[in-house]
Amino acid sequence: MSEFSFEVIHTSKKSSARVGKITTPHGIIETPGFVAVGTNGTLKSLDNELVSQIGLQLMFCNTYHLLLQPGREVVKKAGGLHNFINRKMPIITDSGGFQVFSLAYGSVASELKSKGSKSHKNSVVKITNDGVMFRSYRDGKKILLTPESSILAQKDFGADIIIPFDELPPYHIDKNKLAISLDRTHEWEKRSLEEHRKNINGQAIYSVIHGGIDKAFRKKSCDFLTSLPFDGHAIGGSLGKTKAEMKTLLEHTMPRLPKNLPNHLLGIGDLESLAFSIPLGIDTFDSSYPTKAARHGVVFTKHGKMKISKTINSDFFAPIEEGCTCPTCKNYTLAYIHHLFKAKELTAMTLASIHNLHFMVEHMKEYREKILRDEI
Amino acid sequence: MSEFSFEVIHTSKKSSARVGKITTPHGIIETPGFVAVGTNGTLKSLDNELVSQIGLQLMFCNTYHLLLQPGREVVKKAGGLHNFINRKMPIITDSGGFQVFSLAYGSVASELKSKGSKSHKNSVVKITNDGVMFRSYRDGKKILLTPESSILAQKDFGADIIIPFDELPPYHIDKNKLAISLDRTHEWEKRSLEEHRKNINGQAIYSVIHGGIDKAFRKKSCDFLTSLPFDGHAIGGSLGKTKAEMKTLLEHTMPRLPKNLPNHLLGIGDLESLAFSIPLGIDTFDSSYPTKAARHGVVFTKHGKMKISKTINSDFFAPIEEGCTCPTCKNYTLAYIHHLFKAKELTAMTLASIHNLHFMVEHMKEYREKILRDEI
Repeated sequence: MSEFSFEVIHTSKKSSARVGKITTPHGIIETPGFVAVGTNGTLKSLDNELVSQIGLQLMFCNTYHLLLQPGREVVKKAGGLHNFINRKMPIITDSGGFQVFSLAYGSVASELKSKGSKSHKNSVVKITNDGVMFRSYRDGKKILLTPESSILAQKDFGADIIIPFDELPPYHIDKNKLAISLDRTHEWEKRSLEEHRKNINGQAIYSVIHGGIDKAFRKKSCDFLTSLPFDGHAIGGSLGKTKAEMKTLLEHTMPRLPKNLPNHLLGIGDLESLAFSIPLGIDTFDSSYPTKAARHGVVFTKHGKMKISKTINSDFFAPIEEGCTCPTCKNYTLAYIHHLFKAKELTAMTLASIHNLHFMVEHMKEYREKILRDEI
Repeated sequence: MSEFSFEVIHTSKKSSARVGKITTPHGIIETPGFVAVGTNGTLKSLDNELVSQIGLQLMFCNTYHLLLQPGREVVKKAGGLHNFINRKMPIITDSGGFQVFSLAYGSVASELKSKGSKSHKNSVVKITNDGVMFRSYRDGKKILLTPESSILAQKDFGADIIIPFDELPPYHIDKNKLAISLDRTHEWEKRSLEEHRKNINGQAIYSVIHGGIDKAFRKKSCDFLTSLPFDGHAIGGSLGKTKAEMKTLLEHTMPRLPKNLPNHLLGIGDLESLAFSIPLGIDTFDSSYPTKAARHGVVFTKHGKMKISKTINSDFFAPIEEGCTCPTCKNYTLAYIHHLFKAKELTAMTLASIHNLHFMVEHMKEYREKILRDEI
């Protein structure tokens, strides 16, 4: 079993883009790399054997969901998440904070839309400096999530990379409240790190850089969190409401992160964002977008996104993309997949998801090759 | 490419059960054999590559559904159903008759329940001796299905075994009407056979024995249809409303079918029915039950059916069935599949479907071995 380590193989002469290699107890993650989201311990409509075969080197599972179902005890008894879900390759888990606070403030997207005015069915019972008390959407039971309990759960899950408990303040928050939230997040992350270091268990822990869209706060967050012995840094919190805003924010944040540690951009994985984030030196990205798009009949190709249900595809007797080596394109025509979507067959979602994930794997491979050639 | 043929390898000394081998242009079907139903050209939640790997030697597709989506032209342009859906092994298609008449009279189950009194949203516009005019549920277009048009569609589809166009009278029908229906069905099947023989195209055609639950009519149907040069015989129409009624009916019908031709029991595949039908000499069975049960979280084991969501399964860290060699049992525990069902993940349906289909394949293999040993 290898220990966690990170090596920068090459930094582009043209930008801050870099090719790296993260070594974990469950294998290698080549960077820049795409991280697929398997919230409940599975990528939706796919089985984990197949996911590994496609070459997805890191899978993101959500502690919040796993705590509610199947629960910490079951995963622990199974001998950890890798055993439980039968994944031999690396896993990253988050802290549960993001989902708990999404419940309090609404999802990022809906909060942005409502401009903070919309009230949400409040499953969060109480937020204190200790942690967050919330109600399970499954059985109504009260659950207390603290930095310590989140880390202990993530110890039981045994992911290769874990995330400290943080607060996710809404985009629409006044500066004073954001300042308070930031201090609390920093305190929680520090407590998480301390809990983690009591029993490292072969796991790495990344900080989550916060500060919303306030540059001074982002700087403060970088200064504070990079002073602590985290194994890497994730960029979280509100990243703005436009891609331009996110880009500005990353341009401001990335130079403040240590070059010798891996970093991760939380919840972002659309192609446009990758295109401007990779030159800024981002190493890994997680997103449920490729699988969500697939389930809605949108597939990725080198010529852009394509809606499978377009009538013109009904008799297109060639793969989604000529030359694509994914199991879907090797075995089935676009016409058949078009038919399956029209007939509302679940198989359609599986075949499209396989293609999109394989596309992301190949897309990142191309990025790595371009960086090695100093082309970006 | 082999021509269609059937060979009886062994008939039990204890019953009329027999082990046989159907040879088709796309390979061998060992009998007794289970035929999985892939209505729209896919088994629900599974891809056809996997289905072939599990060893499902014959797949049943529904002409009615395929005519409406993707339509005859698309399948024809694809070079037939095997090409279109990427299945290298044998396929059987039905005539569309069953579904059209289910639309007119309601499904078999709901018709039985309503005792024939319930009126159904009538998508069937007109039934004449020529055929049936109905409205597409997709776009409201009128479609005329006749013996000739059904066979021509099945020629375009190119299944290894095809079925003549027949009328499906309801269970609750008076004897005079059943007599008229039987004559019409016989006439339609004869016309279907004639159309088929204009262009055999390497395909085999099975008759469909009718007559409802009337013994004299069943005898009449056997006499008439076995006098025609069909390649095999399927048993269709109403098979009664209880298993006892079906058994009596099969005991009456089976001795009237030629021993040198393969036969098929339409729409039946539950384990109890197999147990009394196989000793009567039935060769193949089609049923969507194993996949439907799987999607509802019911899996088959040697000790009977099991509901995956039972609480006791939540920490059962062993396969659904110890020793099972299906891809699901080889890779995942029952606890994990329990979790996936609880979390409402589509993957759960896929994994359970794989197990149940593999179970059916193995179950039939065991029947064949028992027959070879004259044990049943």
